[in-house]
Amino acid sequence: MKFFSQPFRIKYSDTDQMGIVHHSNYLKYFENARISWLRSVGVSYKKIEDSGILMPVVSASVEFIYPLYFDDEINIEIILDELPRATLIFDYKIFNQNKKLVCTGNTKLAFLNSITMRPTRVPKNIYNLFSGSLE
Amino acid sequence: MKFFSQPFRIKYSDTDQMGIVHHSNYLKYFENARISWLRSVGVSYKKIEDSGILMPVVSASVEFIYPLYFDDEINIEIILDELPRATLIFDYKIFNQNKKLVCTGNTKLAFLNSITMRPTRVPKNIYNLFSGSLE
Amino acid sequence: MKFFSQPFRIKYSDTDQMGIVHHSNYLKYFENARISWLRSVGVSYKKIEDSGILMPVVSASVEFIYPLYFDDEINIEIILDELPRATLIFDYKIFNQNKKLVCTGNTKLAFLNSITMRPTRVPKNIYNLFSGSLE
Amino acid sequence: MKFFSQPFRIKYSDTDQMGIVHHSNYLKYFENARISWLRSVGVSYKKIEDSGILMPVVSASVEFIYPLYFDDEINIEIILDELPRATLIFDYKIFNQNKKLVCTGNTKLAFLNSITMRPTRVPKNIYNLFSGSLE
Repeated sequence: MKFFSQPFRIKYSDTDQMGIVHHSNYLKYFENARISWLRSVGVSYKKIEDSGILMPVVSASVEFIYPLYFDDEINIEIILDELPRATLIFDYKIFNQNKKLVCTGNTKLAFLNSITMRPTRVPKNIYNLFSGSLE
Repeated sequence: MKFFSQPFRIKYSDTDQMGIVHHSNYLKYFENARISWLRSVGVSYKKIEDSGILMPVVSASVEFIYPLYFDDEINIEIILDELPRATLIFDYKIFNQNKKLVCTGNTKLAFLNSITMRPTRVPKNIYNLFSGSLE
Repeated sequence: MKFFSQPFRIKYSDTDQMGIVHHSNYLKYFENARISWLRSVGVSYKKIEDSGILMPVVSASVEFIYPLYFDDEINIEIILDELPRATLIFDYKIFNQNKKLVCTGNTKLAFLNSITMRPTRVPKNIYNLFSGSLE
Repeated sequence: MKFFSQPFRIKYSDTDQMGIVHHSNYLKYFENARISWLRSVGVSYKKIEDSGILMPVVSASVEFIYPLYFDDEINIEIILDELPRATLIFDYKIFNQNKKLVCTGNTKLAFLNSITMRPTRVPKNIYNLFSGSLE
C-alpha cells in the first residue's frame, strides 16, 4: 500500500535566502511523488492527459516540521487513501537522509475533462489499476 | 482589519501545461500578500530578517476553487487572525478580475532566531505594530 | 523606442541561499517586460496565443553585473532591435532602485503555429503594430 | 573530460501553457549538472559554500533547439572549458530520450568570498581537483 518514491537530492534553486527550501517547493515534491506512484501502478500521467483527462489539485495542506537543506537526500512516502470516486486523496511524508520526518501533507485531486474543464468519471481502466494498488 | 494587496497580473511562467497557474504558486502569492500586509502596518520583512529574526511558514492549507489563468488580474485579501504569540496565523482569499473568489487558504508562521534557528519571542515593537493593526 | 516596464519589487521566493536572486529568474523578468512592452504597443500576448501563434524563446543570453536582493525595486528597459521577420530580438537592461545597471541581456523569439509547431509568418496586424513602435 | 549527469525526467511543474518546458528552467538544469560534475570530481558545492566561497553565475547563454516535454528523460553533457583562473566556464548539451540534441549553452562562474562578496582566488585544493579533471 505504501509507496516510496525514488530518493532525490534537493536542488540549489529550491532554496531561498533563509538557507532552506522555500515552502512552495514541497507541493512540487508531492506532485513528483504522485506521478512516480502512478507510474509504479502502471499509469502514465502523461497518457492520462493525452487521453483528455486532467487531474488538478483541488486542495492541499502541508505541515513543515523540520527544514530541508540544499543537497539533502529525501524520500517521499505516499499513500492513496481510498478508491477514487470523484476525487483522489493522497497522504505524503517526507524523510531526510537521517530518516527524520521533515514534512507531512495531503492533496485532493479531481478528474476533469480537458475540453469542457468539467468534472468527469474516473476512467474504468484507471479505476481498476488503482483498485489493484489498494489490495 | 482586512487588507487587500495591490492587484497584480498572473505571469506567463506561473502557468503549466494544463493551461492554468500551477498550484504551488499560490503559496508564493500568499507570501507576497503577507509581505505587503506587513509593509502596510509599518513592518519591513527585510528589516525583520536583518535584525536576526526569521518567520518561516510552519503549516499551510489551500482550497483551489476556480483556475487562475495567464494575464488574470488578481486581488488578495489577507487577514491576521489574532495577536501573535509564538505563531502568526493569516487567512487569504484570492479574487480574479471578475471578483470571483478563486482560492482560500491560510498559513501559520513561527518566529525563529536566525542564529540558533530556535523559536523566539515576538519582538515588542513588532507586537505593538500588529496590535495596532487589529484595532 | 525605449520602453520601461512598470517597476516591481523582488519577491522573497526569487532568492536562493546565496542571499540574492537566483539567476534563472532574470529570464522571467525579461519575459514579463516583453509582455508589458507588447501591451504598451497594443498587443495582448494572450490574444496572440488565442489566435494560434506561439512566440517561444529560441535563444537568450544574460550578463549578471551586480546582485539583486529581496525587496529591491527594479526597472527594466526593453528595446526591440529591428522589425520582425522570422524572429524578434529584444535587448534588456535591469536597473535597481539606486539606478545601478545590474543586468543586461537579450532574447530571440520565433513565431510558431500552435497546431503544427512549425515556424509561421508574423501576422500582418502584429507587424504593423511593431512597425509603429519603431518610428 | 566530458561528463554526463544522471538522466532525469522532466517535472510537470517545469512546463508552461505552451505545453513545453519554460525556458528559464534550462538554467536550473545546467546548475544541477554542474553540481553533479563537481561531485564527480570530488568537490561538494555545499562544502565550498560552507568554507566561505560562493560561485555565482556571472553570464549565461542558451540556444533552445527543440522543445522539452513533461516526462522526457534527459541527459546533460557538461564540459569544463579550461583550468579556472578568476572564473570557470562550462559548456552544456542537453539530449532527450531519443538522443536528440535539444539545447546547448554555457555559463561563466566567479569565485566570491561570502563575507566580503568580493572576487577571491580559486582555493588550491579545488584548483587541483579541477586540474585532475582536465587530464
